[in-house]
Amino acid sequence: MPKEITNKTNHPSKVPSSTNHQVIDRFKRLQQKEISIDHIFNDIVSKNTTALSKGITLIESTQQEHVEKAQQLIEKCLPYANKSIRIGITGVPGVGKSTFIEALGNLLLDKGKKVAVLAVDPSSTVSYGSILGDKTRMESLVRSPMAFIRPSPSGNSLGGVAQKTRESIILCEAAGYDIIIIETVGVGQSETAVHGMVDFFLLLKLAGAGDELQGIKRGIIEMADAIVINKADGDNEKRAREAKNQFRKALHLYPLSENKWSPDVLTCSALENKGINKVWDLIQDYLSITIENGFFEKNRMRQNKFWLLQTIEEQLKTSFYNHKNIKEALTSKIDDVIHHKITPFAAARYLLKLSEHKNEK
Amino acid sequence: MPKEITNKTNHPSKVPSSTNHQVIDRFKRLQQKEISIDHIFNDIVSKNTTALSKGITLIESTQQEHVEKAQQLIEKCLPYANKSIRIGITGVPGVGKSTFIEALGNLLLDKGKKVAVLAVDPSSTVSYGSILGDKTRMESLVRSPMAFIRPSPSGNSLGGVAQKTRESIILCEAAGYDIIIIETVGVGQSETAVHGMVDFFLLLKLAGAGDELQGIKRGIIEMADAIVINKADGDNEKRAREAKNQFRKALHLYPLSENKWSPDVLTCSALENKGINKVWDLIQDYLSITIENGFFEKNRMRQNKFWLLQTIEEQLKTSFYNHKNIKEALTSKIDDVIHHKITPFAAARYLLKLSEHKNEK
Repeated sequence: MPKEITNKTNHPSKVPSSTNHQVIDRFKRLQQKEISIDHIFNDIVSKNTTALSKGITLIESTQQEHVEKAQQLIEKCLPYANKSIRIGITGVPGVGKSTFIEALGNLLLDKGKKVAVLAVDPSSTVSYGSILGDKTRMESLVRSPMAFIRPSPSGNSLGGVAQKTRESIILCEAAGYDIIIIETVGVGQSETAVHGMVDFFLLLKLAGAGDELQGIKRGIIEMADAIVINKADGDNEKRAREAKNQFRKALHLYPLSENKWSPDVLTCSALENKGINKVWDLIQDYLSITIENGFFEKNRMRQNKFWLLQTIEEQLKTSFYNHKNIKEALTSKIDDVIHHKITPFAAARYLLKLSEHKNEK
Repeated sequence: MPKEITNKTNHPSKVPSSTNHQVIDRFKRLQQKEISIDHIFNDIVSKNTTALSKGITLIESTQQEHVEKAQQLIEKCLPYANKSIRIGITGVPGVGKSTFIEALGNLLLDKGKKVAVLAVDPSSTVSYGSILGDKTRMESLVRSPMAFIRPSPSGNSLGGVAQKTRESIILCEAAGYDIIIIETVGVGQSETAVHGMVDFFLLLKLAGAGDELQGIKRGIIEMADAIVINKADGDNEKRAREAKNQFRKALHLYPLSENKWSPDVLTCSALENKGINKVWDLIQDYLSITIENGFFEKNRMRQNKFWLLQTIEEQLKTSFYNHKNIKEALTSKIDDVIHHKITPFAAARYLLKLSEHKNEK
């Protein structure tokens, strides 16, 4: 048990051998700590929501001790994970993501599924991000014992926030959630991160004023397995249908991707609960095709590899740019380089040498 | 003079103090070597083409001694560089890049400009890549004393090939070339590299069979400052005009970029030398707008910074993945990760620790 060794070797030299009482106390506390991870784990796989919340809190903590504990917990949960369907949902603010997720979540609860909703939102630094920012959101999901809702972890870097959500998925899966919905706001890179951790990626849109193609980030359209035009109700219904046709035409310009799935466009009204079942049917079609042709499993494997290399490369950059010598020298070298005093390559060589020096000390 | 110190301290302990003859000989040779870089430099700024070729050969060499010499040479040339217009030209094989470059080059020669043509083509591993692969190509440019043509440097990595071309630009500029044309084949990443080293980026296309939008890599269209539809001659003329209209419509879907330039679409026949002057007019329009609004200089500064950070980050990755410990461990960790035995983040931590170990030895 590596963690026992870690804990026992923690302060052995500080314990005076004569005071039996202290030794026993310390031993008890160590045991309690150990039991607590086992406890949390046992409670998680027994589908205890409080334990799941505690586990995710551990993952989100930046304290070194918690980080290690969290890794132990994740490792224990891994064999129980990977059995859910992971759905990513993105869309700009105002598109109705929360209402849509609540409608889809309720449909899934009605079908006897357990649903967890997580989020990746690096812009929500302090606390509750887009999910639950407004307490009335997803009210019926919050009340259901079969649903688990967790706001975005806080953090400055997308990489950090995404990693925490990615690890929380494992705990939710170990806790027996069948469907994990990952919400993200439509801000560039966070979609790419979420796309890299889900099986199905859904883009939520509104019918605009005829300029549907104008404002789309092309990269996001290419990632989407489905586009759903929300708020197709009342006066908006006709415009939503028109938007659907425009998007369908636009999607046909893209070559069929590796998963042999041609992304489709649907309309719905999350508010009036119309068209949500069609969305779920579409997701099921996607799943049966990609599970059958092997893409589903291949994609998950590739996502794992992607996160491995991504984490390594981000960490390499972070250590370099946070290196004391580099912090001091980088600005002046950038200045030299942009003013053509030295070539970018010579400056890079100089800085890379500089970053080696400290390691040798 | 840092290079003198380098050279003099090269083998000082190996020279027997008694043999004056040997010492003098070695000293002469050292002097000659030193003079040679000075010579090459003086000849380059005196617009000697042979010296320019020699200098680029030095840049392209992988021998450590040459690499250092090349850096000295580039440093000497830097104050004389940065005075040309750099034009990137891309297009799939068969689009007529060489014919187009010859036609444009000849037009520029007629206007009294000195023209250098370089290339970035990482697929041409051994020798002469797309330029000059066929000796009849660019024949009239090859013969002109005002033109300098150099095939792509060889190399396995795009980063390496691009760096060599990027450094060769500096020498060409020091040698007084007014226009530097960088050719690249249409294979994904190399366009991005060329786009990052030029002032104006031109995409050469053919009129297709009505499916103009289908096969385009969206990323490349977004980079282009102009699209030129070549082979607008004979039966093809009408189709070329239609293609032009289609592309113009497609380009209007893109928001105006930071340089306030809206990319345009032209047709030409390089073979019949028709429409080339319009292309040059367009490039001049672009230049006067972007020089006026400051984008031209800002872009060059940003490109320099880009190459600095890019080089650093590639080098960090290369050292990591080539680390002996990592080479051995990476495959098995990837395997563990894709089979859900350990989380990508735990594997990354393990590998990053492993890569630190050797540096400490």
